[in-house]
Amino acid sequence: QYSTGVRKVTLIPGHGIGPEITVAVQKIFEAAKVPIEWDEVDVTAVRGPDGKFGIPQKAIDSVNANKIGLKGPLMTPVGKGYRSLNLALRKEFDLYANVRPCKSLDGIKTLYDNVDVVTIRENTEGEYSGIEHEIVDGVVQSIKLITEEASKRVAEFAFQFARDNKRKKVTAVHKANIMRMSDGLFLRCCRELATKYPDIKFEERYLDTVCLNMVQDPSKFDVLVMPNLYGDIMSDMCSGLVGGLGLTPSGNIGKNGALFESVHGTAPDIAGKDMANPTALLLSAIMMLRHLQLNEHADRVQNACYAVLREGKSLTGDLGGTGKCSEFTNAIISKL
Amino acid sequence: QYSTGVRKVTLIPGHGIGPEITVAVQKIFEAAKVPIEWDEVDVTAVRGPDGKFGIPQKAIDSVNANKIGLKGPLMTPVGKGYRSLNLALRKEFDLYANVRPCKSLDGIKTLYDNVDVVTIRENTEGEYSGIEHEIVDGVVQSIKLITEEASKRVAEFAFQFARDNKRKKVTAVHKANIMRMSDGLFLRCCRELATKYPDIKFEERYLDTVCLNMVQDPSKFDVLVMPNLYGDIMSDMCSGLVGGLGLTPSGNIGKNGALFESVHGTAPDIAGKDMANPTALLLSAIMMLRHLQLNEHADRVQNACYAVLREGKSLTGDLGGTGKCSEFTNAIISKL
Ligand SMILES: CC(C)[C@H](C(=O)O)[C@@H](O)C(=O)O
Ligand SMILES: CC(C)[C@H](C(=O)O)[C@@H](O)C(=O)O
Repeated sequence: QYSTGVRKVTLIPGHGIGPEITVAVQKIFEAAKVPIEWDEVDVTAVRGPDGKFGIPQKAIDSVNANKIGLKGPLMTPVGKGYRSLNLALRKEFDLYANVRPCKSLDGIKTLYDNVDVVTIRENTEGEYSGIEHEIVDGVVQSIKLITEEASKRVAEFAFQFARDNKRKKVTAVHKANIMRMSDGLFLRCCRELATKYPDIKFEERYLDTVCLNMVQDPSKFDVLVMPNLYGDIMSDMCSGLVGGLGLTPSGNIGKNGALFESVHGTAPDIAGKDMANPTALLLSAIMMLRHLQLNEHADRVQNACYAVLREGKSLTGDLGGTGKCSEFTNAIISKL
Repeated sequence: QYSTGVRKVTLIPGHGIGPEITVAVQKIFEAAKVPIEWDEVDVTAVRGPDGKFGIPQKAIDSVNANKIGLKGPLMTPVGKGYRSLNLALRKEFDLYANVRPCKSLDGIKTLYDNVDVVTIRENTEGEYSGIEHEIVDGVVQSIKLITEEASKRVAEFAFQFARDNKRKKVTAVHKANIMRMSDGLFLRCCRELATKYPDIKFEERYLDTVCLNMVQDPSKFDVLVMPNLYGDIMSDMCSGLVGGLGLTPSGNIGKNGALFESVHGTAPDIAGKDMANPTALLLSAIMMLRHLQLNEHADRVQNACYAVLREGKSLTGDLGGTGKCSEFTNAIISKL
């Protein structure tokens, strides 16, 4: 679906530390001669014709044209009428599968050294439906919406992802013992898709059990697929096992576009001080290269990044080092 | 609310390994001269007048009379019309606060040695409302129900628990950035209660962030309070940090009764083979003693249990030992 030759990619630097880690990725990609032309757009909440705040039209047009983007962290102003711009982007482009790999990294010491899991999160509905009511004073309901369509497509995505990436197993994570109809539907869709992928092992597990087993022995898991909120939790938990959100990438994939993003915050306290860790955004950008089938470029940049992490000399403060963002970036460039 | 002298306690041995771990607790309590008289009842699903399966009336009457009970794991038959008996008990007696302490234990080696957290879980509503609909074919909604009443009482319980147990901090765990109205209401109730407990530090954190921080550094947390499903996940995760469900107790507390239970399964594969680990049920029974203000008895039995775990000689198979349930039990008794 993408043209060969130079690819145009929407670039959303975002706020806080966003711009500086974005520049880091751009420099590294330039040094690696990655055939990408960036189409930089600003995503700061603007008031739409309906009075609500949302994504600027220019950004929407850019993603629609390029069908692929890389984004840094976005700040959502607090207050009535504002909704998370991160979520708004996922919704706007119907990016239905959120892929979050977590892998133990050489040089990053945590309690775990055997993590290699990928959370595939349904990214459009579930507990994120946004439908809520106050029935009477002090009685509120939120609606968790599960559809066959969205469940099937994310289940299919998970199995296809497992096959493409030579993974062995998909675990469907659910609470169908409690939410029999909604999680039950999700689970049935996973079962149905499982029959179409006989080369991939399939298992179903309760969310609480997976949380327990994951912290005890992450090597039990491979690819995991689950409804929206469960994926939000699970991916953060797994990220914690390998060193945190500064190190783990994320991709939001849809039929007509894909947006790769670091999931950490804007870290306003260190913004502009050349202290931020660009790893998560870089690894997200590398996921993006694979999505564009630029696998050789992806491998080269990834190896350079892993080598610098392994050597541990220019690590940023969040990783216990004293390196600056620019030092870390240059160290990667000199490995290329 | 309880008579002094000998206390009558409803005993629900349950299924699978339930009866043998129950006998273990009974023997230990007898040796420790705990002033308890057991009122043993069977809880196996029976068909009620409405055709649905539920808790036998005799068990209900017993808990209503004694207002306190100890229960082993229950097996819920799979199939239409059956609902989890564990949940049915919580509902029947309006046991609104589920207390699950997780503490690193000497002698039990895990990746963590600094865990000491208590999950307080709202136990009656939220994602466990049981209200679900299929709107049209393939479109299902489950309702998460949050009320001011239930949120306030569990928040109050958490702060009072913190004060009574000389804890320093309560963390409210939520996703009010997504479920603004429901989790928002829960959070506002926590804030309101926090002002009534100025001696207890209060903080609010996103569920995903807590999952991430918990696996990185559990010492950041103390008492945590949260809606039903979040508590289900969090307590299992924390249990994993200290060795699993075989080692962590649980108490369901209401205005008119309390039920203490081990949260692990019935383990039919090892049932009747004298292989089960009675620790979780024993620690739950010790929580019950404290609830009955039998603190000296609680301390004595707890010290004996901890000493046996620390020595590590008679540990059961799930803890890497070769001890039988009866050996482990006798080892505790000989410490008393
Ligand atoms: C920022 C927030 C709305 C978002 C979410 O809840 O999905 C974040 O936690 C994530 O995982 O991307
Ligand atoms: C058995 C199951 C219904 C229950 C729950 O989901 O609450 C269990 O996981 C628990 O934590 O007690």
